[in-house]
Amino acid sequence: MPLPEKALIAEIRRLAKASASGGIRGSKRFVFTGIGDDCAVLRLPPQQECLITTDFSLEGIHFRRDWHSPESVGHRCLARGLSDIAAMGGKPVAAFLSLALPADLPQLWVRRFANGLISLARKYGVTLAGGDTAESPGGILADIIVVGAAPKGKSVLRSTARPGDRIFVSGELGGSAAAVERMQSETKKDKAKRQKLDQRSYPRHFYPEPRIELGCILREKGWVSAMIDTSDGLSIDLAHLCEESGVGAEVDAALIPRARVGKPSTEVDLGLALHGGEDYELLFTAPPGKRIPSQIAAIPLTQIGRITRGSKIVLHTQPNVFQELEPGGWQHFRR
Amino acid sequence: MPLPEKALIAEIRRLAKASASGGIRGSKRFVFTGIGDDCAVLRLPPQQECLITTDFSLEGIHFRRDWHSPESVGHRCLARGLSDIAAMGGKPVAAFLSLALPADLPQLWVRRFANGLISLARKYGVTLAGGDTAESPGGILADIIVVGAAPKGKSVLRSTARPGDRIFVSGELGGSAAAVERMQSETKKDKAKRQKLDQRSYPRHFYPEPRIELGCILREKGWVSAMIDTSDGLSIDLAHLCEESGVGAEVDAALIPRARVGKPSTEVDLGLALHGGEDYELLFTAPPGKRIPSQIAAIPLTQIGRITRGSKIVLHTQPNVFQELEPGGWQHFRR
Repeated sequence: MPLPEKALIAEIRRLAKASASGGIRGSKRFVFTGIGDDCAVLRLPPQQECLITTDFSLEGIHFRRDWHSPESVGHRCLARGLSDIAAMGGKPVAAFLSLALPADLPQLWVRRFANGLISLARKYGVTLAGGDTAESPGGILADIIVVGAAPKGKSVLRSTARPGDRIFVSGELGGSAAAVERMQSETKKDKAKRQKLDQRSYPRHFYPEPRIELGCILREKGWVSAMIDTSDGLSIDLAHLCEESGVGAEVDAALIPRARVGKPSTEVDLGLALHGGEDYELLFTAPPGKRIPSQIAAIPLTQIGRITRGSKIVLHTQPNVFQELEPGGWQHFRR
Repeated sequence: MPLPEKALIAEIRRLAKASASGGIRGSKRFVFTGIGDDCAVLRLPPQQECLITTDFSLEGIHFRRDWHSPESVGHRCLARGLSDIAAMGGKPVAAFLSLALPADLPQLWVRRFANGLISLARKYGVTLAGGDTAESPGGILADIIVVGAAPKGKSVLRSTARPGDRIFVSGELGGSAAAVERMQSETKKDKAKRQKLDQRSYPRHFYPEPRIELGCILREKGWVSAMIDTSDGLSIDLAHLCEESGVGAEVDAALIPRARVGKPSTEVDLGLALHGGEDYELLFTAPPGKRIPSQIAAIPLTQIGRITRGSKIVLHTQPNVFQELEPGGWQHFRR
């Protein structure tokens, strides 16, 4: 059934209303005018600075309709933006969705996508405050904009790591990329032999949880000197952090927390943990003298290395054996 | 020459830097951290509210590479967002660009697109503060996010027109749609007989000027009760304003300012002035007792009708002859 733009807008209004009424830490009071005007009007609390991030979710690049349920696509779309807010130690306030859909897309797909997105928005008290809709020239195209807030001057940047700081990562790495690897190998098989991946065995890929609470606690306690989320993969994101801070790093391969995936669960290869993207964990540095707990808000924190002078990023694979860590790159679903 | 994502990001950084240093009413002091972190950090002046708008510019839907120069695509991309800020009576502060490009797009196209966008950003003192980049699964895909500011509680909404208010429009209407009509008719001809449209004869289509200054003056003087920009066309945008305000309207066809286009210039048909979109003029209502000048900032203002009770929008075509004005719809380049 084709989806006229008017029906789509009505759908998005409906879901925006649903999102506005939900959320434990509801942000509705900050959104003065939402969908239905030329702009949304936000009023942030005084003494807060405004955090803004935008992230594409493009069919064939960031997701595939034969791999991801509509709910997962909606969840992941918003999670990408929320994770950027988490990486600044901020709290999300409002989201904006630009959504272009092929004319022949079933309305049910949109409703299920919306439900996935809205469920996550409600959980974090985020109001869907606006966006744009269009017919797509090909494939489903979404761009999510998330606005967050942090106390003035307290947002945690990438550029403030210093030599001697310890490097930590939250949760486990490589779980999301392991799901992609599995789906790619299934896709190569004959259609009859293909097995559909069980989404519940790979939650970090299909329903990543942005580390909002962890990011806020780390900022409030003053335990972090710099932070980034692992959206592109440890090797690339650590390189970003080091480049922006003008420092180098040493990482101990044995310390990297590798995800356990599948049923029965097995530990992912080091390569996936180093280079696989879209885990949406927090990678942060702690200044000397700050004791970091082994977990915060039930999320394990692991020290994996140390910031150094210079600009090289070195991976220790065995005692006294090391190599330069090349940014491996997360290429999404390109082959 | 293919465009690796890294080169693209470098290009956007370069242009963002260029935009940050420009602008008479430079907004750089409001942008604390821009491109290069998980989020941009903005600090709006106290007592201001934050305006946010997002607008797609998709190849084949909003522009065509054989019709529009890269500079025009870049200019129109940002102009769409700036016009939404103008329609709230706001001042633009920062822009964010999500840009997905086909792997085989020449880097020159990106540079020229960026130059068109940046020139407009500099003119209005807008900092390009972030965004996202990706490989496109097909066609050039841009989403522009513009953040603006207005004094708290003073943003001009669509929903506040009242019966008895007069309806005004800035500039002329139908000029942008006339260009599309001409290009469509040329495209149908044999390739040898086609004439390339002279962009200078249709400036309102290729280089629309957002009515930022006009919108601010109208708000500051208290001359407007409600406002919207004519991005979808007079008939649709007036319907939006009336629907949000819960009112009807009467419009006098003879009063609608029709654009003069081409060389030698001719006046566009009433249909284009009524239903043609993308003129980015301001459509606003003035409360009784407010005298509206015939022009502001060298832009003519024309009274075209009046807000009424009820919900009908009526078009007077001759004395005592009228018909219901159906929203005509601006379908961009779809046929």
